[in-house]
Amino acid sequence: MALSTKPYKGARDFYPEDKRFQKFLFEKWREIVESYGYEEYDAPILEPLEIYLAKTGDEIVKEQTYVFEDRGKRKVVIRPEMTPSVSRLVAGKRQELSYPLRWYSIPNLWRYERPQRGRLREHWQLNVDIFGVQSSDAEIELISLIDDIFKSFGADESMYEIRVNNRALTNYILNDYLKLSKKSQHNVLKLIDRMHKMERNTFITKLDECLTSKEKEKGFAEKLLVILSSKDISKLSEDIKKHSSYKELNDLLKRLKRSGTERVIFDPTLMRGFDYYTGIVFEAYDLDPNNNRSMMGGGRYDGLVGLFGVEPVPTVGFGWGDVTLYNFLQIHHLLPTLSTETDVYVAQIGNTSEAVNGLAKKLRDSGIKVAIDYTGKKIGDQLKSASKKGVDKVMIIGENEVRTQKYKLKTLSSGKEEELSINDVIKALQ
Amino acid sequence: MALSTKPYKGARDFYPEDKRFQKFLFEKWREIVESYGYEEYDAPILEPLEIYLAKTGDEIVKEQTYVFEDRGKRKVVIRPEMTPSVSRLVAGKRQELSYPLRWYSIPNLWRYERPQRGRLREHWQLNVDIFGVQSSDAEIELISLIDDIFKSFGADESMYEIRVNNRALTNYILNDYLKLSKKSQHNVLKLIDRMHKMERNTFITKLDECLTSKEKEKGFAEKLLVILSSKDISKLSEDIKKHSSYKELNDLLKRLKRSGTERVIFDPTLMRGFDYYTGIVFEAYDLDPNNNRSMMGGGRYDGLVGLFGVEPVPTVGFGWGDVTLYNFLQIHHLLPTLSTETDVYVAQIGNTSEAVNGLAKKLRDSGIKVAIDYTGKKIGDQLKSASKKGVDKVMIIGENEVRTQKYKLKTLSSGKEEELSINDVIKALQ
Repeated sequence: MALSTKPYKGARDFYPEDKRFQKFLFEKWREIVESYGYEEYDAPILEPLEIYLAKTGDEIVKEQTYVFEDRGKRKVVIRPEMTPSVSRLVAGKRQELSYPLRWYSIPNLWRYERPQRGRLREHWQLNVDIFGVQSSDAEIELISLIDDIFKSFGADESMYEIRVNNRALTNYILNDYLKLSKKSQHNVLKLIDRMHKMERNTFITKLDECLTSKEKEKGFAEKLLVILSSKDISKLSEDIKKHSSYKELNDLLKRLKRSGTERVIFDPTLMRGFDYYTGIVFEAYDLDPNNNRSMMGGGRYDGLVGLFGVEPVPTVGFGWGDVTLYNFLQIHHLLPTLSTETDVYVAQIGNTSEAVNGLAKKLRDSGIKVAIDYTGKKIGDQLKSASKKGVDKVMIIGENEVRTQKYKLKTLSSGKEEELSINDVIKALQ
Repeated sequence: MALSTKPYKGARDFYPEDKRFQKFLFEKWREIVESYGYEEYDAPILEPLEIYLAKTGDEIVKEQTYVFEDRGKRKVVIRPEMTPSVSRLVAGKRQELSYPLRWYSIPNLWRYERPQRGRLREHWQLNVDIFGVQSSDAEIELISLIDDIFKSFGADESMYEIRVNNRALTNYILNDYLKLSKKSQHNVLKLIDRMHKMERNTFITKLDECLTSKEKEKGFAEKLLVILSSKDISKLSEDIKKHSSYKELNDLLKRLKRSGTERVIFDPTLMRGFDYYTGIVFEAYDLDPNNNRSMMGGGRYDGLVGLFGVEPVPTVGFGWGDVTLYNFLQIHHLLPTLSTETDVYVAQIGNTSEAVNGLAKKLRDSGIKVAIDYTGKKIGDQLKSASKKGVDKVMIIGENEVRTQKYKLKTLSSGKEEELSINDVIKALQ
């Protein structure tokens, strides 16, 4: 039986016309993050299981990782996210590195889950992290950088918004302001994290189930619902506004607006799943009604590097998947038309390969990208090949051209044809 | 217990100073292959097991693959090579694609084996393939391209040689010229493939073991030893020289020399392991006595696309690993000095972040890469950080500078310090 030509479920083949778009995304990403002084690093796609068990969300490790035993009986994981790896690298040179450390990577990540729009089993993700900054200068830099990335793709602020919350503020509200029991806090946090995946009524019912009967009696569910619907941070109660986590978040929002990052809004329901976030969290949201979803997110996770037995380092970082970005650009008509890199196609009449190769070498030495047709097909078919590949310039060479050293240069789009010496061909193509 | 900071065995972490070298290799590779009209594609790192069982060498699939069952009970492999994947992609669009098809990729590949110099469990590999060319124009193009890659890194022909053989010629010699039994042929082929890993005497003993007693009596072992030691293709016996596979190889060697690819030699012992090669095979060899080894190789494999149930396509391709290339460049002192991409480091006196961020935005808008120090450390420590990161230009900004709008620009290597307006800073850095 013939083998299937399909890729593995939930993963993508990149034919050259697809790969071009991916390269376009990656190049823009690199351009912007490097303009902020970030440097690229990388780590193996296989990691020991242990580094995920400590702090990644349970669901991911237990149900969604590609985990297996290697031939030497080590438990290994195809990385589902980059944060544990980058923490491992920083911990490995904790003393030698100088801070602030700005690192980025575009790793290939895998999660075992049901493929759906915007969420495949495999994707690439821009990971940007800044290490060694205690102040919210770090968050402000990353949120500005995210905004710059959107703008560099031609997006304007009618298309996206950046939502911000502070996990420390949420913790304060649940623990100190509402004084929920530890267990209720844990359950409420998990529930809020999933609230946009359910109807409001379901959420209210489930919220009641998270609380003890005493907590319910005191009307905590109602209080919490009011807080979670606040869009305006200044309307929170005065008690909450006294806490440092409120001030931090409020200052951040003000500074971002002043610096020209307009579309930043307070979202008290934003949790960002992962257990490791300790402070400000943020997320970019697509505002198109047909693609209303979170595209990327991140936050402060000061505790992760310390798990590797070194002094902890304050850290803020984010991850941004290629699939969600691609969908965003597509739905907002921001994808450019990309064509082949090849500058000229050489069609041969008869077998002139040795002469053609010599000429092609001259073109290449002048920085011109040349593809040669060696099929020996009819000239019309060779021109069709050039056109199908999207190469607009074709050099036609037969024995006659080799003798006279004058070569036909045809422009497919206009039909224009010239007879030129090799130097003039080079000039025409440069 | 603290988690280990080591990467998975046989795999590499790429700190920015390492990643820079990898990017340098990849960029050169891309530059040269694109100058020949090759276009980049990609495929998932996970593939169904079946596509390797058909034609990859037994040893690789049975002993060296990372194979496991996913949560849906599918047998999947972390790809050990790219050839089955690229054949799958071509087969998937067999009719729509136009030939010659020139494709390349730089995939991450994994093999479970004992890590050793030049051979890790994980590497990246440049894969270049040309589809749809029957004639040896295809092989000539790829061998010239390999030679161009070496030269683009500054290598000269005292450092490497390209060895060439024809699997069809070897088959002819064993099957028609020596008339060995099928079983003896198979064993002899496998033995020749490993002959450089053993002493000559061991090889002779093992060669005897491959033959039937009748074959031994006829002196086939001696005849084969003479053929295998031929360095000069023209010295082969007249009977062999009549065969088309000899002519093909001999023409190829002649044409390559005429076109300026000097260091190409005939090597009758070259087999290239994989079962799928059907014609010319080639390999680049490091001539440094301390790194005397094969660096990369490839050949013609006309049968692979056809395994996916479509009409076969003549194909020639090669793979070139990043580890062997890096070692080659290192041993021949061809690695350049690479430094950070960042153009300027901003050191702050006091907290001037808001003003500094505004200035940095102006620099970025002019294409300058700026890293800002937000640590609030003493100015001397901030200068040390800049120096450690390898950034030579430092802008020093305090409240005074913000007021006067004149900023100190210091060049660390010379100690030179200037007071400049932001526009003059931009001019100085561009």
